[in-house]
Amino acid sequence: MELIKVGIFGATGYTGLELVRLLGVHPNAQIAFATSESMAGKSLKESWPQAPDIPLQSASSVNYDNVDCVFLCLPHTQSALVAAQALAQDVRVIDLSADLRIDDPTVYAEWYKVAHPHPELLPVPYGLPELGREKLLGVQAIANPGCYATATLLGLVPLARQGLILEETPVIVDAKSGVSGAGRKPKANTLFGEVHGNFSPYNIGRGHRHIGEIEQVLAESGFEAGRLVFSPHLLPTDRGILAASYVQVSDALASADALAEFYQDEPLVQVLPAGQLATLAHVVRTPLAAISATPGSDNLLVVNVAIDNLLKGASSQAVQNFNLMWSIPETTGLRYELVHHNSEAAYV
Amino acid sequence: MELIKVGIFGATGYTGLELVRLLGVHPNAQIAFATSESMAGKSLKESWPQAPDIPLQSASSVNYDNVDCVFLCLPHTQSALVAAQALAQDVRVIDLSADLRIDDPTVYAEWYKVAHPHPELLPVPYGLPELGREKLLGVQAIANPGCYATATLLGLVPLARQGLILEETPVIVDAKSGVSGAGRKPKANTLFGEVHGNFSPYNIGRGHRHIGEIEQVLAESGFEAGRLVFSPHLLPTDRGILAASYVQVSDALASADALAEFYQDEPLVQVLPAGQLATLAHVVRTPLAAISATPGSDNLLVVNVAIDNLLKGASSQAVQNFNLMWSIPETTGLRYELVHHNSEAAYV
Amino acid sequence: MELIKVGIFGATGYTGLELVRLLGVHPNAQIAFATSESMAGKSLKESWPQAPDIPLQSASSVNYDNVDCVFLCLPHTQSALVAAQALAQDVRVIDLSADLRIDDPTVYAEWYKVAHPHPELLPVPYGLPELGREKLLGVQAIANPGCYATATLLGLVPLARQGLILEETPVIVDAKSGVSGAGRKPKANTLFGEVHGNFSPYNIGRGHRHIGEIEQVLAESGFEAGRLVFSPHLLPTDRGILAASYVQVSDALASADALAEFYQDEPLVQVLPAGQLATLAHVVRTPLAAISATPGSDNLLVVNVAIDNLLKGASSQAVQNFNLMWSIPETTGLRYELVHHNSEAAYV
Amino acid sequence: MELIKVGIFGATGYTGLELVRLLGVHPNAQIAFATSESMAGKSLKESWPQAPDIPLQSASSVNYDNVDCVFLCLPHTQSALVAAQALAQDVRVIDLSADLRIDDPTVYAEWYKVAHPHPELLPVPYGLPELGREKLLGVQAIANPGCYATATLLGLVPLARQGLILEETPVIVDAKSGVSGAGRKPKANTLFGEVHGNFSPYNIGRGHRHIGEIEQVLAESGFEAGRLVFSPHLLPTDRGILAASYVQVSDALASADALAEFYQDEPLVQVLPAGQLATLAHVVRTPLAAISATPGSDNLLVVNVAIDNLLKGASSQAVQNFNLMWSIPETTGLRYELVHHNSEAAYV
Repeated sequence: MELIKVGIFGATGYTGLELVRLLGVHPNAQIAFATSESMAGKSLKESWPQAPDIPLQSASSVNYDNVDCVFLCLPHTQSALVAAQALAQDVRVIDLSADLRIDDPTVYAEWYKVAHPHPELLPVPYGLPELGREKLLGVQAIANPGCYATATLLGLVPLARQGLILEETPVIVDAKSGVSGAGRKPKANTLFGEVHGNFSPYNIGRGHRHIGEIEQVLAESGFEAGRLVFSPHLLPTDRGILAASYVQVSDALASADALAEFYQDEPLVQVLPAGQLATLAHVVRTPLAAISATPGSDNLLVVNVAIDNLLKGASSQAVQNFNLMWSIPETTGLRYELVHHNSEAAYV
Repeated sequence: MELIKVGIFGATGYTGLELVRLLGVHPNAQIAFATSESMAGKSLKESWPQAPDIPLQSASSVNYDNVDCVFLCLPHTQSALVAAQALAQDVRVIDLSADLRIDDPTVYAEWYKVAHPHPELLPVPYGLPELGREKLLGVQAIANPGCYATATLLGLVPLARQGLILEETPVIVDAKSGVSGAGRKPKANTLFGEVHGNFSPYNIGRGHRHIGEIEQVLAESGFEAGRLVFSPHLLPTDRGILAASYVQVSDALASADALAEFYQDEPLVQVLPAGQLATLAHVVRTPLAAISATPGSDNLLVVNVAIDNLLKGASSQAVQNFNLMWSIPETTGLRYELVHHNSEAAYV
Repeated sequence: MELIKVGIFGATGYTGLELVRLLGVHPNAQIAFATSESMAGKSLKESWPQAPDIPLQSASSVNYDNVDCVFLCLPHTQSALVAAQALAQDVRVIDLSADLRIDDPTVYAEWYKVAHPHPELLPVPYGLPELGREKLLGVQAIANPGCYATATLLGLVPLARQGLILEETPVIVDAKSGVSGAGRKPKANTLFGEVHGNFSPYNIGRGHRHIGEIEQVLAESGFEAGRLVFSPHLLPTDRGILAASYVQVSDALASADALAEFYQDEPLVQVLPAGQLATLAHVVRTPLAAISATPGSDNLLVVNVAIDNLLKGASSQAVQNFNLMWSIPETTGLRYELVHHNSEAAYV
Repeated sequence: MELIKVGIFGATGYTGLELVRLLGVHPNAQIAFATSESMAGKSLKESWPQAPDIPLQSASSVNYDNVDCVFLCLPHTQSALVAAQALAQDVRVIDLSADLRIDDPTVYAEWYKVAHPHPELLPVPYGLPELGREKLLGVQAIANPGCYATATLLGLVPLARQGLILEETPVIVDAKSGVSGAGRKPKANTLFGEVHGNFSPYNIGRGHRHIGEIEQVLAESGFEAGRLVFSPHLLPTDRGILAASYVQVSDALASADALAEFYQDEPLVQVLPAGQLATLAHVVRTPLAAISATPGSDNLLVVNVAIDNLLKGASSQAVQNFNLMWSIPETTGLRYELVHHNSEAAYV
């Protein structure tokens, strides 16, 4: 099979670096170019010592003739501009920004406080494969979900679809993320001296922008907007998200079983046996999600979803989406499948 | 005034060390002795390089004649034995273990899976001064609250007392603690290599022992046992607790105001202005609690309580209790009151 | 005694914050003002949640009439400008920048690649009290040493003064610092995501600017410039310096004893007994230096000096210098002396 | 090619886990069994959540009939016992303990304070491939070097072989290791609460056991025992070693060039261009060594060697040795060679 030529916009950020790592060893992909505005003309190796020696160019100098598919690790609004350019040249797009996630530009403007630069691109299929991979096969563009949205939706959607969440009850999501979720641009609150020894909530309640995409997806199962209370926190570690969802149900044990059954055939989402709890150690540096569903009482289910925010929360999910888009087996490039002789693949 | 002679049992643990630090500079106290079973005969300085050169002795060699009050930083069941001995010799007791916290020995046995060694000592006043300091004045023994219990009760009791929590709704507490909460004894799960880069829940739902004392205190305000869902987590940092309580109320904004009003005259509990959120950085290495009460929706209040688990969650609260027990101004030894010329005391 | 009115320039940086903390409880000082260019008009509490509610003003708006002494926590070159202004108004100066440390403006220009803005201010007494406190008594201005310089000089000067370092041998200093040494301004290399899990050398050999002041002080004992090889490193922690000096001597054991003897009466510099090694845990959050002198072979002495880079390496040393400048007992404000009844003062 | 059946003794320790990870995807190896005394009868997954579901057995129950080669991640003295058993059954041995590293049992006894349990096994080829891979081809047993020894020897041996180190000068090695180097067994000094925020030297001078093997290897180039001064330190991070060697030479620049030339064709040892310094970020989670050689003065070379202590310092080096022992290309299983289409392999 011919290699698919891919371009990575925003390669020196944390998600861009992970994409280089994954696509660099993907058997069906070849990295055609990588962009960075701040480091154009330099090598990616100057940005990260373990990176390959890939030359960086500015986004404006990209030639779309020699590329089949682009991954956009750009700030929102900038991403839509590049997406529009690429699609106009018949280059497929996987957008890791928020620009293609919200179907309705009015809703986008509410959450992002800015008019959508290219509303004509919307809607675009939302790329969370375990919650609906059919709509992603062979498409031209995929909106890659947010990291918090991935962790939250993996826990809630199976319950919502089966009508297990009690009506008119609030759903609490207390989520904690490693610092890489805040990006690689120097900011006062992500300095080592501010994060080390600290733990801090932010945007509690209805303030976080991922609520928009979370409730859009939940609405497809009849979950009314406004019921979600979302509390994100900054953890003193570099990567990983653990999201605890507190859901009122009529039978917590049965709901836990339903969640396990929903994912039983998924290779990248693992519901742990009863009694085990999902932790960051289950998933960091892997494309996996680990889920534990624990009855907190007869009528309250505690769902913990752990993912690596840069992988299942961004770049490895983007590769799943890439595989589906190009009709390649979905986990290609994400497991050690070629060389693994042992009982089961694993990510030690 | 004559100095009160104090003894510290279990001085080489994390809470014992903090008590040595606090009582060593307390204007009304003099450390008479400090015990350690594993280091008897050695100096406290060998256990912690910044400690004073205090000789350590075994608990069995203590002479109660030369001491007025003892602080017990011992494992549960062992602590009750020493408490009984001390009280029998007219030495007052502040117990930092769980042994004196639960009024009913049957309930104690349910949570701690062991018969109470000295049920005749019960009940003992529960030493959380901001929730009731009158009952602590001049008493012979005080049960010092658990760290998670302190953080949880500071947030919930004012709401429960005023009947603000909607009846028959679950109360969710998602709490996160630094590793020192697990003690200083070497264990596989508190090794640096296991905690660094990780974040993990444990004992989710109704499993944590502090639920016993939390619900006992809440019951005084008519809050029925069993409504609490408690999720503790281990943070990759050394100290501090942040407990997020999710409480269904009829008016979240009014409830937030009620909480602020409740604590408005408290020197050691600070409810932050609306828009600010409590973090570990507000409180680590201080005797303070910082609280933020944020409406998550019209009917749901998110209460974040931050404390230093070793101070307000243990040793500085023990000093508050000591001061009340001996009729000394409650914050003595806890603020820089003697030398502070500036606008307000602070803990930078 | 009347309080000395002090002003702090650059109060929102790490060393500025420590000065506020120390001077806020100093029995002879009163903070008259604090400056910050980026936060002028706001409260210091917005910069650091444990700080007192001190209003911040810009440096240009300072009125020198109501202040006796200023502490300068400013970038080099800016600091000299303020120093000149203050001294012109008979206000005394303790400069924590590099501007007053180098006696010869030509040497300053070599290390700092910029002409000294006020060479007429030079020379100024170098404020490392344990190496010469007489020259600091009652002076108008003191140059507060650099953090690495303090750690290095405390280890080497006693050996150099007694002629114990073998002539024409290189002196190796392998020094490691917590990240706060790089300041609080957001930079790419001090982001949490870059420092966590990393350890990195920088400016190896003859590149670090502190070499200038180190060799200037060593030269007073006949140690020729150019013999020092200095390797600084960034540690994945917030504060503390451990500097290991490798010194060729004729008798390592005797040299170790000489070092211990030199500091035997110093309250803030502690040479550990043989067999114990200085660590960050000995000193972080204290004004102390801990030193261990260990023979690495018969003719090679390994001197480890541990300090808190923000305290003995900056702000608590500035308070020592302040005390000497104003003829106050040198450790005033730095020990719990007023209330300590126990065997010895300590910093648990 | 038929798969080589391998057994891993001590699979639940940090180096054992890394071997499972590497050998589990090695194209020529198949894991036949894994042992653990503390977890015999359980699954490796219970020890580490990302591990495959491999059953653990006790060492005494191993059947050597179905295995071609064993890796020993056991405490010293225990390791030699298993090595002797395995070799007696014609099973090849790669020993990650110290038991086969020292040629002379008398020297072993000096460093390890215990008689060698099987002196008849000695000497065994020392498996540091870049310093001599010929002697490892097809052998029955290989002694895998210590982590500190690997980092130190990679820097010093090329200089020693070419006679570049000035005679009778001391060689200083100031080395820093992540905490996993201390093993996974709970100990007081490796608790999170003791390591977080700390940095500590230990065994300074001539105390560390790795000096024995380091000087044995250096002696082959005429470097006299006793000249090495070795200062190990514990870093507040989980993995990685950075060893700084300070070497007196006649021409520091020429010596730096000699080092670069020595490794110019090595795939796993990279000497960085002048001006770049080796850091942990270059190597953690890779089988690489990164080296920078920086003149500290005309006659003093500073060699920084960075490795992952669990990989190049233990388990990936064991795989290099395994490959050489079985005449497989040396980097098999260590690079993404099968699927990499881009300019160069890399470990982002």
